[in-house]
Amino acid sequence: MRIAFIGLGNMGAPMARNLINAGHRLQVVDVNTGALEQLAAQGAQIAATPGQAAAENELVITMLPAARHVREVYFGESGVLAGIRAGTLAVDCSTIDPTTVREVAAAAAKAGVDLADAPVSGGTGGAAAGTLTFMVGGSAEAFAQLQPVLAQMGRNIVHCGEVGTGQIAKICNNLLLGISMIGVAEAMALGHALGIDTQVLAGIINSSTGRCWSSDTYNPWPGVIDTAPASRGYTGGFGAQLMLKDLGLATEAARQAQQPVVLGAVAQQLYQAMSLRGEGGLDFSAIINAYRRFE
Amino acid sequence: MRIAFIGLGNMGAPMARNLINAGHRLQVVDVNTGALEQLAAQGAQIAATPGQAAAENELVITMLPAARHVREVYFGESGVLAGIRAGTLAVDCSTIDPTTVREVAAAAAKAGVDLADAPVSGGTGGAAAGTLTFMVGGSAEAFAQLQPVLAQMGRNIVHCGEVGTGQIAKICNNLLLGISMIGVAEAMALGHALGIDTQVLAGIINSSTGRCWSSDTYNPWPGVIDTAPASRGYTGGFGAQLMLKDLGLATEAARQAQQPVVLGAVAQQLYQAMSLRGEGGLDFSAIINAYRRFE
Amino acid sequence: MRIAFIGLGNMGAPMARNLINAGHRLQVVDVNTGALEQLAAQGAQIAATPGQAAAENELVITMLPAARHVREVYFGESGVLAGIRAGTLAVDCSTIDPTTVREVAAAAAKAGVDLADAPVSGGTGGAAAGTLTFMVGGSAEAFAQLQPVLAQMGRNIVHCGEVGTGQIAKICNNLLLGISMIGVAEAMALGHALGIDTQVLAGIINSSTGRCWSSDTYNPWPGVIDTAPASRGYTGGFGAQLMLKDLGLATEAARQAQQPVVLGAVAQQLYQAMSLRGEGGLDFSAIINAYRRFE
Amino acid sequence: MRIAFIGLGNMGAPMARNLINAGHRLQVVDVNTGALEQLAAQGAQIAATPGQAAAENELVITMLPAARHVREVYFGESGVLAGIRAGTLAVDCSTIDPTTVREVAAAAAKAGVDLADAPVSGGTGGAAAGTLTFMVGGSAEAFAQLQPVLAQMGRNIVHCGEVGTGQIAKICNNLLLGISMIGVAEAMALGHALGIDTQVLAGIINSSTGRCWSSDTYNPWPGVIDTAPASRGYTGGFGAQLMLKDLGLATEAARQAQQPVVLGAVAQQLYQAMSLRGEGGLDFSAIINAYRRFE
Repeated sequence: MRIAFIGLGNMGAPMARNLINAGHRLQVVDVNTGALEQLAAQGAQIAATPGQAAAENELVITMLPAARHVREVYFGESGVLAGIRAGTLAVDCSTIDPTTVREVAAAAAKAGVDLADAPVSGGTGGAAAGTLTFMVGGSAEAFAQLQPVLAQMGRNIVHCGEVGTGQIAKICNNLLLGISMIGVAEAMALGHALGIDTQVLAGIINSSTGRCWSSDTYNPWPGVIDTAPASRGYTGGFGAQLMLKDLGLATEAARQAQQPVVLGAVAQQLYQAMSLRGEGGLDFSAIINAYRRFE
Repeated sequence: MRIAFIGLGNMGAPMARNLINAGHRLQVVDVNTGALEQLAAQGAQIAATPGQAAAENELVITMLPAARHVREVYFGESGVLAGIRAGTLAVDCSTIDPTTVREVAAAAAKAGVDLADAPVSGGTGGAAAGTLTFMVGGSAEAFAQLQPVLAQMGRNIVHCGEVGTGQIAKICNNLLLGISMIGVAEAMALGHALGIDTQVLAGIINSSTGRCWSSDTYNPWPGVIDTAPASRGYTGGFGAQLMLKDLGLATEAARQAQQPVVLGAVAQQLYQAMSLRGEGGLDFSAIINAYRRFE
Repeated sequence: MRIAFIGLGNMGAPMARNLINAGHRLQVVDVNTGALEQLAAQGAQIAATPGQAAAENELVITMLPAARHVREVYFGESGVLAGIRAGTLAVDCSTIDPTTVREVAAAAAKAGVDLADAPVSGGTGGAAAGTLTFMVGGSAEAFAQLQPVLAQMGRNIVHCGEVGTGQIAKICNNLLLGISMIGVAEAMALGHALGIDTQVLAGIINSSTGRCWSSDTYNPWPGVIDTAPASRGYTGGFGAQLMLKDLGLATEAARQAQQPVVLGAVAQQLYQAMSLRGEGGLDFSAIINAYRRFE
Repeated sequence: MRIAFIGLGNMGAPMARNLINAGHRLQVVDVNTGALEQLAAQGAQIAATPGQAAAENELVITMLPAARHVREVYFGESGVLAGIRAGTLAVDCSTIDPTTVREVAAAAAKAGVDLADAPVSGGTGGAAAGTLTFMVGGSAEAFAQLQPVLAQMGRNIVHCGEVGTGQIAKICNNLLLGISMIGVAEAMALGHALGIDTQVLAGIINSSTGRCWSSDTYNPWPGVIDTAPASRGYTGGFGAQLMLKDLGLATEAARQAQQPVVLGAVAQQLYQAMSLRGEGGLDFSAIINAYRRFE
């Protein structure tokens, strides 16, 4: 398949590489020359603009940091929508707000383009290993066509509903994740302060009603789960800054929908305070540091 | 075994019944005459006071509503400690604060009595079916002796550490549970408001990092989990008043330990507000009503 | 002075009227024909577009509901910046985010226009009576020229610093106001629940360290302050929806500045929940209803 | 007047001294020998026990750290109630929970003693200067008799209602104070982060609806109010540990009354986190440190 791939950051570059390895012909676009050259060395062509790349391929994939980049790449003077032909397929894998996705999809539809959103989870590790989860919002036809391509970059390809629902699924899941992690941090730190062994406590929680991924797979107390970031200095996982971004998307979407998210808003503030203390670069489970007494 | 069983409420009565059915000889004490007569009809003897019951049996089990009842039953004029002989075993199955447990245990130790705490989870259903979980805090010897007896009332008998750690395990787990449930409620309600199908959203969460008991087993959105209280009008589960009690124990224990529990404190307030609105008698998952628009 | 006045809503219309009464010649613009006709009946001319109005006057005043209207009125095809001549003065009295204000001001500066922001407080009552407070962000020159004109619509004209600081002052004040009001509501409701007379409690607070405008001037408990909305069914004051809008601006600005505002975020959620319960049309002090037991 | 004064801590000692200076004959009791000797050097007699002191005087004043000390002093074997004669007056100036006060008052009433509660505000400075505020809960008769004596230790003697209402008034005021201070801290820190001058911002708030004691008298931003602790390194004011204690009393009383206090609970947690970071010894306005970026 001939694919335009726009956005070669920490996530986009390994995803593009997996598509090349799977036999696709890629045209790539990025503002970062170094990233372009690396992909070119692996067999990709370099396109001058998003519009040009869109014009010459069957599928457009975008993987960008934030909504304003997506708007620019699609709506810009030499953007995707300026070049794309009717009937081309498009999928935006960025994590952005559902409102922007719907606006871009509506504009794409006018140009005869069926656009889906497909934000991912799994981090840079999953991007490299091709084990990402894609949460896809789009028409049944778009999903059917995208599924085999996404499956070359990920393991779990879920259809969430019409366009925008991919983003909704992701921000709702991460809203809950951000809250759960703090809940586990509070439970573990309280238990420790009251005098129970943290390994024993985790064992009880994990076989009881407190059971959750943040406790049984990613426990924030060092040493409880060997493979969790907490057991390697809170490095190499899902950065607190990314959690903060996702909670920002969730609370902002809630504000627009006039929907309360009380614990979500408090959670956002606690990660914000963590970032203010200079710990935003650590894995998000390091939020537990705010609850521990370090002598 | 000859057992003194003190406290025949909604939980205590079926627990006592299971012990009788298992072949033990029970002496029972309660302030409620009706409860006493029911147990007597099933083969129990009625003792006049906790002290008398304690004097005449090998094991004392207490199952009481709150710390002040435990204090009264143990420290009262004709209380357990006034009658008990050295070498008797004692276990308190009430859910109370760890500080009180430790005080009672210290007083019991002076009387030559090895007291353990063993709060339960599983509700009245589990008490009747004999499938409770017991979280046991006490010496290894006490645990070894209690384990077979508790196993006649429950399925899962966990040793948490020294006396008091049973309570600690329970309040830490329920602190997390109370938070998780609100987290799930917020995520489900936000997803619904933004336009994703709730069944689809629950499915994604349950196979992703938001996965937790409150979502995959006890989801608060009606119809998502057939067996959950949400699917039967929020009846017959774990009442919001009980969750409120446990969060009160957790935040009070945190206060004494000078330990922050930010989301826990907010969660407590949200269940308190639910109770103020007259919904304290519903299952705690009905907290989601605070997030839904009912036209 | 020849003034273009754009935006004749509940606030804008009486403000424009006060300028006419002060002897200025006004050209008015609005999408609402009824509002235009009313002002015309009071002596204003009607302009076809913001651009036309801007072209023909010495001063442009805008009073619009939200940032997107401000963008449209300034940046639109026949918007202010399309018509305005260099040297014209401009002031935006809308309550919007500081970032948008700065963008509009930067664009205006390129057109040789010195734009200030001057959001108001005092509500529709203050707008009619000409007793508003204007919080002005802009150059010293702009402030000097605007001051006499604004003084014909308000009583208190404060220079807050460079452009954008008017908005900053307003959202910071209202962030605190939204928090204080809930603080007073919690203190009054707790006192009542514990058994102290609310009038006595308010008296003590008002002469002590809890003293604040939300207690001594606008107390949310009915009957404590005769002139407060609480004493007339929570009508006719500062609507909860407006408080919610301002807290939305404050928390969103905080998010962009990576600044925690923990209580502010919780306050926003509590007003959001109030709105969800259908009480968003009441005065914001009706937040106390969430804390009272109504039998 | 012959007065038994029990509790010679940082507050009690200077209060007792003011009574001696006003011409009263004092018998003093404390566990701290040094404190006793200092008062003896200033003319007080030393009593052996609270009971003995109570037996030999017309008025008993207690000023103790927490509820358990009050219980011990009144209910202990040689406690006040063991020695006191009917008709003696008693006033407890400690800051404790209203429930304990009412229990002690009920027991005192049985002994023919009219007990009032009269917690203070004003700190050690006010205690030394004799400018404390006393919030008095008790009968009209008790208040009439106590008023002249309390006026020798304070400036503002307020009758709040029946016994217990003194404590209620104090914890409700301090609940609001604890919240307001964080509100001011968030508003000032947000304004600073967004780029407004903090002195200008404080001026606007102080003449607007955000006006409050925490801003206009005790502003947490250094330099805004010369006489505030913020302008002298957060020393010498109302310690964060004391605010934490009072918020603990307020939220615990709310829990017992089944009354939500959402912001109050969050405020308590934020001061708790401040204490965990080792800043509990600073003035409570140093909570603003949690909101500032220190490079």
